[in-house]
Amino acid sequence: MSSLSVTPLRSIGEVDAGSDLAELIIVAARSEGVDLADRDVLVVTQKVVSKAEDAIEAVDPLDPLSHKPLVEREAVRVLRRRGDLLLTETRHGFVCANAGIDLSNVESGTAALLPEDPDRSARRIRDAVLGRTGVAVGVVVSDTFGRPWRRGVTDVAIGAAGVRPVVDLRGTRDAYGRELQVTEVAVVDEIAAAADLVMGKASGIPVAVLRGLPHEWFADDGERNGVLTDLVRPHSDDLFR
Amino acid sequence: MSSLSVTPLRSIGEVDAGSDLAELIIVAARSEGVDLADRDVLVVTQKVVSKAEDAIEAVDPLDPLSHKPLVEREAVRVLRRRGDLLLTETRHGFVCANAGIDLSNVESGTAALLPEDPDRSARRIRDAVLGRTGVAVGVVVSDTFGRPWRRGVTDVAIGAAGVRPVVDLRGTRDAYGRELQVTEVAVVDEIAAAADLVMGKASGIPVAVLRGLPHEWFADDGERNGVLTDLVRPHSDDLFR
Repeated sequence: MSSLSVTPLRSIGEVDAGSDLAELIIVAARSEGVDLADRDVLVVTQKVVSKAEDAIEAVDPLDPLSHKPLVEREAVRVLRRRGDLLLTETRHGFVCANAGIDLSNVESGTAALLPEDPDRSARRIRDAVLGRTGVAVGVVVSDTFGRPWRRGVTDVAIGAAGVRPVVDLRGTRDAYGRELQVTEVAVVDEIAAAADLVMGKASGIPVAVLRGLPHEWFADDGERNGVLTDLVRPHSDDLFR
Repeated sequence: MSSLSVTPLRSIGEVDAGSDLAELIIVAARSEGVDLADRDVLVVTQKVVSKAEDAIEAVDPLDPLSHKPLVEREAVRVLRRRGDLLLTETRHGFVCANAGIDLSNVESGTAALLPEDPDRSARRIRDAVLGRTGVAVGVVVSDTFGRPWRRGVTDVAIGAAGVRPVVDLRGTRDAYGRELQVTEVAVVDEIAAAADLVMGKASGIPVAVLRGLPHEWFADDGERNGVLTDLVRPHSDDLFR
């Protein structure tokens, strides 16, 4: 019975511009009895990454649409409009509502933008945890996106370090010995989704720790895997851009 | 440290037409030391549900495209074509490649179709487990879908019983006391994704057990929640059909 465990870190506390996320995570894990180990994966929500990196802009707290100019500025393309909702492509290549900008779980009168380079954000956290504790974790930065055809939102990965965003099963064989048709699994999106199950949108838990993922999903230090390079689908390969 | 655990059941063994999935799960859980409890969620892959329900058709094992006539028959609409790939809408309302038909992890010369009513499939397993053990589990039937804009596949829910497909956080407040903008979370898709992390496409593990999900996500016996009713986005509400 080798289970995967998904553990929320509840004692991270308030995150502000300049907060040291790696240190907050190390301290919270220690105080909650989570002994971080090699190949644990830390899932960190976009919201606290954006706050720590000061990717925050002022908006009029009395105007529910005051963030719309920011959306127009941050989006490189608008795919669809419906009412107040803009379905946009960001400069990272993500397709999401309102250029990923939202107003929940930030202070009144402010809006959180997406991190400038979420893979770099993940790598900074990974490197800081490694430097201070000697433990080589994977890091996934998660955000909450809608999707076509299916109701509801799910958490997906917008940045990753130390863990391969897409695991290629090409060449592996199924239980009947035939080569698999489905070959590339977006494991970082599944990791982000699993973490959201313990976070709770309302409670504002910003970090979860996954333990028990296959060793071969972890990247060597020298590799520069990332969500932007490995997971964003190239336009030429996309039927819906 | 209240963790979520995700545990694969490795001893399910071969599933054939008429196999009693609930019994196989009960026996495997017992032999693997997993003591099923109320509000555990069993995630069961579409492949074994289709096999047990005999949603299997013969195809020419020497012709890699021999399942294409089945795809044309099972699809109610083709949204896009690229090479051999058809992006289809099924009669359930799912949008997926090749009407959900695939050839991996089934015997040579056969193709697995989607279950006729995956919510009913989930409910049968739930009811059988409840009847034989007295334990009220949730059941999610999962399948592997691609998606636009992001590379790789992830597992999603195609059927559910005993657990709410979409949890509505409307009216709940964020950590700053404001009403949440993002209100509906497709928790069964996140559950299916989490389960896939322990299943491994190649190893053919068909069932995982999730333990530790919030009580309020579970549906009363009287409720008839389902993926088809609650999670498939109505055409009128969809920007990409």
